[in-house]
Amino acid sequence: MANVAVLGAGSWGTALSIVLADNHHEVRLWTHRAEQANDINESHTNKKYLKEVSLPESIVAYTDLKQAVQDVTAVVLVVPTKAIRDVCKQLREVLDHKVTLIHATKGIDPDSLKRVSEIITEEMPSDYYDDVVVLSGPSHAEEVGLRQPTTVTVSSETMKTAELAQDLFINEHFRVYTNPDIVGVELGGALKNIIALGAGISDGLGYGDNAKAALITRGLAEIARLGTSMGSSPLTFAGLTGVGDLIVTCTSQHSRNYRAGYMLGQGQNLEDVLEHMGMVVEGVRTTNAAYKLSKEQGVEMPITHGIEQILFQNAEPKDVVDQLMTRGRRHEMEDLTNVLSD
Amino acid sequence: MANVAVLGAGSWGTALSIVLADNHHEVRLWTHRAEQANDINESHTNKKYLKEVSLPESIVAYTDLKQAVQDVTAVVLVVPTKAIRDVCKQLREVLDHKVTLIHATKGIDPDSLKRVSEIITEEMPSDYYDDVVVLSGPSHAEEVGLRQPTTVTVSSETMKTAELAQDLFINEHFRVYTNPDIVGVELGGALKNIIALGAGISDGLGYGDNAKAALITRGLAEIARLGTSMGSSPLTFAGLTGVGDLIVTCTSQHSRNYRAGYMLGQGQNLEDVLEHMGMVVEGVRTTNAAYKLSKEQGVEMPITHGIEQILFQNAEPKDVVDQLMTRGRRHEMEDLTNVLSD
Repeated sequence: MANVAVLGAGSWGTALSIVLADNHHEVRLWTHRAEQANDINESHTNKKYLKEVSLPESIVAYTDLKQAVQDVTAVVLVVPTKAIRDVCKQLREVLDHKVTLIHATKGIDPDSLKRVSEIITEEMPSDYYDDVVVLSGPSHAEEVGLRQPTTVTVSSETMKTAELAQDLFINEHFRVYTNPDIVGVELGGALKNIIALGAGISDGLGYGDNAKAALITRGLAEIARLGTSMGSSPLTFAGLTGVGDLIVTCTSQHSRNYRAGYMLGQGQNLEDVLEHMGMVVEGVRTTNAAYKLSKEQGVEMPITHGIEQILFQNAEPKDVVDQLMTRGRRHEMEDLTNVLSD
Repeated sequence: MANVAVLGAGSWGTALSIVLADNHHEVRLWTHRAEQANDINESHTNKKYLKEVSLPESIVAYTDLKQAVQDVTAVVLVVPTKAIRDVCKQLREVLDHKVTLIHATKGIDPDSLKRVSEIITEEMPSDYYDDVVVLSGPSHAEEVGLRQPTTVTVSSETMKTAELAQDLFINEHFRVYTNPDIVGVELGGALKNIIALGAGISDGLGYGDNAKAALITRGLAEIARLGTSMGSSPLTFAGLTGVGDLIVTCTSQHSRNYRAGYMLGQGQNLEDVLEHMGMVVEGVRTTNAAYKLSKEQGVEMPITHGIEQILFQNAEPKDVVDQLMTRGRRHEMEDLTNVLSD
């Protein structure tokens, strides 16, 4: 069994640590918060981020990054997209050997418009790893922590590296599939958060399941359109990290992006919503990134544009959703044929 | 404005009647139950099937089919798949002019393995209509009755006939798109009920959203696989009548198929479940039909086969779902590439 460092002790980092500990690995869970490290090491809980779950004792929290990554076989990055670049900079100062480098962060940087694996590759010298692996899929941390059946996908430039990650994580409750399309896996996981915001807004406005299903379906078409224009396979958007993750994120109260959208739909402003959430809502920054990408790539994304208007231009949620529902086009295939032909 | 006959006064037939009445058509809602006809004509309600909605007075219930279809421009069939053939036989005896013939029934006949439009074409002499139109999509009747935003698709062999149906139904709350792929529109609407049974079973067993999302995603892949092998476009399964209807059916308590699955997952047997529902659960017969079609077409459908085992072979739901979750294959694309290549 291996020593594995998990960088980031939010709900998802903690849940992935539980999976690794269940597979008999020694897990070093890095956090910069001393109080949280104490909670994990003394009470074997992470009350703020994953309540109701007691952590295996083989999960040990570290606040010192150098100690956390000493002699580890693999490093799993689970920090917000915003922090990826900075954590990589810290990591390259203290890492002194080659590792399997995995990330489980769903976002796109709104400044550079880079995917997370691209940011990591830019910041980490290539002698520390072979390929970056992304782990993504329909997986609420709370359920993974409770060992409820879950399936995810791992992807990297080479199948061999993806399979190393697969072997670390796979167990009876946590099924890990490989997929060679890293662009599609990363984009699907990031972009679905935009549609989750939209689904939440629709529910927050008091609209029903019919409206939400229409919005999710058209949302899937537009994120697949952007994804294929950026080089990913449309098939990936039909899989676990596309439609699967979209479903789980858009239909569950567990999802922060959905909940943030719900509050926006009820009339709260973005600042209040983010303050109330107290956790990172990746979809907000991703909407900004996708809005820019859609312009850059010349891809029509009416839902993303509408949500961008709500988030950053003070547009009324009701006006935006009503406009999306009553758009002019009358032939379904006008939307859909673009998905595969772009 | 037109006279339109809606045959079948269940929840969906009643909701579609409301849409037509809102569009200023005179609606004749045919039912063979005198008591229900009285309820509609005297109290302007359909208490058993669509409570909490008061019906426009321009909806008039008929128990006499001949009177119901006299001078109508269009006939909308909204009866269970099981009854389609018989109602067509009655209809051809009393119809004396050409109409726009629309159906909104989601199923496949488990004996002939025919789609609903194929059954209608077999039974109705071709001088009474040009092409059969199907109307399908993510649309809980309850929400349509309350004028909540809803989108559906109409499809027929020719665009011209589909557009006649589109013009009858489209309004501000009820968006109607056309799609030329009638095979895919009919199959998507029918087959998603199998996956809804599965989603209900997973929830009934106490599994979480992660498990349900995995099951829905793999379910979508397998119904798209069958659909494409039968001549439909894989794009249709990515649209409103595919993934859209699947989402709304698998994640809402409104859905009978989901609720029936939930009870099965909780350990009740099929007979008790169907007795308790008191309404037709199309997914049960459709599972039987799809099971036979998958054998006939040589298409792998593990979820459909598992649900067939639960419904008709007394298999334990937990054993079946656990087996589906831990199947041998480890590469996601093995499943997905088949979707488009079959």
